[in-house]
Amino acid sequence: MAAIKETRALNELPVGVFDSGVGGLTVAREIMRQIPNEKIIYFGDTARVPYGSKSKETITKYSRQIVHFLQEQQVKAIVIACNTASAYALDEIEKEIDMPIIGVVKPGAKVAAEATANGRIGVIGTEGTVGSRIYSTYINKINPDIKVIGKACPLFVPLVEEGLWQDPVTDEIATRYLSELIDCDIDTLILGCTHYPLIRSTVGKIMGGKVTLVNPAYETARELKELLEREKLLNEKAPGLGDNRYRFYVSDMADKFKTFANSILEYGILSAKTINIENY
Amino acid sequence: MAAIKETRALNELPVGVFDSGVGGLTVAREIMRQIPNEKIIYFGDTARVPYGSKSKETITKYSRQIVHFLQEQQVKAIVIACNTASAYALDEIEKEIDMPIIGVVKPGAKVAAEATANGRIGVIGTEGTVGSRIYSTYINKINPDIKVIGKACPLFVPLVEEGLWQDPVTDEIATRYLSELIDCDIDTLILGCTHYPLIRSTVGKIMGGKVTLVNPAYETARELKELLEREKLLNEKAPGLGDNRYRFYVSDMADKFKTFANSILEYGILSAKTINIENY
Repeated sequence: MAAIKETRALNELPVGVFDSGVGGLTVAREIMRQIPNEKIIYFGDTARVPYGSKSKETITKYSRQIVHFLQEQQVKAIVIACNTASAYALDEIEKEIDMPIIGVVKPGAKVAAEATANGRIGVIGTEGTVGSRIYSTYINKINPDIKVIGKACPLFVPLVEEGLWQDPVTDEIATRYLSELIDCDIDTLILGCTHYPLIRSTVGKIMGGKVTLVNPAYETARELKELLEREKLLNEKAPGLGDNRYRFYVSDMADKFKTFANSILEYGILSAKTINIENY
Repeated sequence: MAAIKETRALNELPVGVFDSGVGGLTVAREIMRQIPNEKIIYFGDTARVPYGSKSKETITKYSRQIVHFLQEQQVKAIVIACNTASAYALDEIEKEIDMPIIGVVKPGAKVAAEATANGRIGVIGTEGTVGSRIYSTYINKINPDIKVIGKACPLFVPLVEEGLWQDPVTDEIATRYLSELIDCDIDTLILGCTHYPLIRSTVGKIMGGKVTLVNPAYETARELKELLEREKLLNEKAPGLGDNRYRFYVSDMADKFKTFANSILEYGILSAKTINIENY
């Protein structure tokens, strides 16, 4: 009896989701949509954001601290909802913990490899993600003939965070960043940073209707669902009214996070709690 | 004899200068120009940059760790070469350490208060600096009748770091940010972030010839010189060829820092060393 009770309890534990800040909320949003029974504990590392311009060593250290924090919160699985941290830290952390953990890169790479017809895929992301060449590593494992062209877009995150989701300045910067991808005749483009779905319409307009945009946030939520099913960890019953369904933690600026989160999520968040992540 | 020897040695110790990243190099550059005998140990917190969008508590904690590091390097005085850290952390840290320490805000405020003829001063900076209202606090201590109008310009730092020092996009963003300061009829504008001297010409062009631009980096180097003179800490003799005149430390991405530093400083820097600042 005790064993059954434990299995049941395990199912009902939350999923841990983390990112450098607010970007990973686009992944959390997809999880909320696709597997609404799942409880989520979200952590945004707002005291050390951004990750995209920092080194593999630093990002791995930060990610390890966050994983320790999430383990302490008794999550049943972890999603690295940040492309840079997925690129730099997933492989190492996977070996260190005894818990299912997935990133956003592999699911995005898989769908892009399936989607391309001409074998030419573009990837836009931070300097860290693009410099790591992680998307081409995964894509070329699936199909070594596909050519993957990366382009770092360092200004997209600040533009999104400044709220310029639809603005002539964002158009101009995006036109500059994307022109070489257009010249490379790609037919598929991976939005390789969790902020980018918020400027999806700008990117789509510039790339034109013939280029398929791949949003790894969507694919990651789908892969999480499959993983939980496979591991018999899916929460079969909807959380009750009294349950604390979605909990949000940050390392700084909780109020600002809350405001941004409420502009992205359909579900209104009431509070975010600040913790000292350097202690983990 | 021992006492005299010690005094001499104290004079010859380096000055510690720190910032969230590369911006403070504009302050280091002014110190190199104005008091070339002084050795400098520079620390850039590139693992946790930027500071401008983070809280007082977080910035004070980070600044305290850096001050501990600089004390361990045996500096004779410390310059907080970051407006946000000066605004948030200087008052507290000043009480905690037994060493001269200055920030960039007070010197900039003093000169601006002297420069204005119509009693209307603008301040541009990060959200943190502008939100703290620290410039108006200092300026109104000097002259309570002066009106200080602040405007946060969050995109200026990413634009500078992306190298768009002279670019139509920077012109457009600057025109938007500065329009309300033009409407307020200011005659003096404080460049309240250490990155901003690098887009001084853009800001000057938009504000027009009648507005005096105040660069706190310049004023801070002048105040440091006066302070060292007053405390009898000025290094009278030029460092020898064998001396390690300028040393640079960062918390991440040393190579990228070096490249940026070499685009700003007249003196070519050969290396920057990475340290783990969370341990201090």
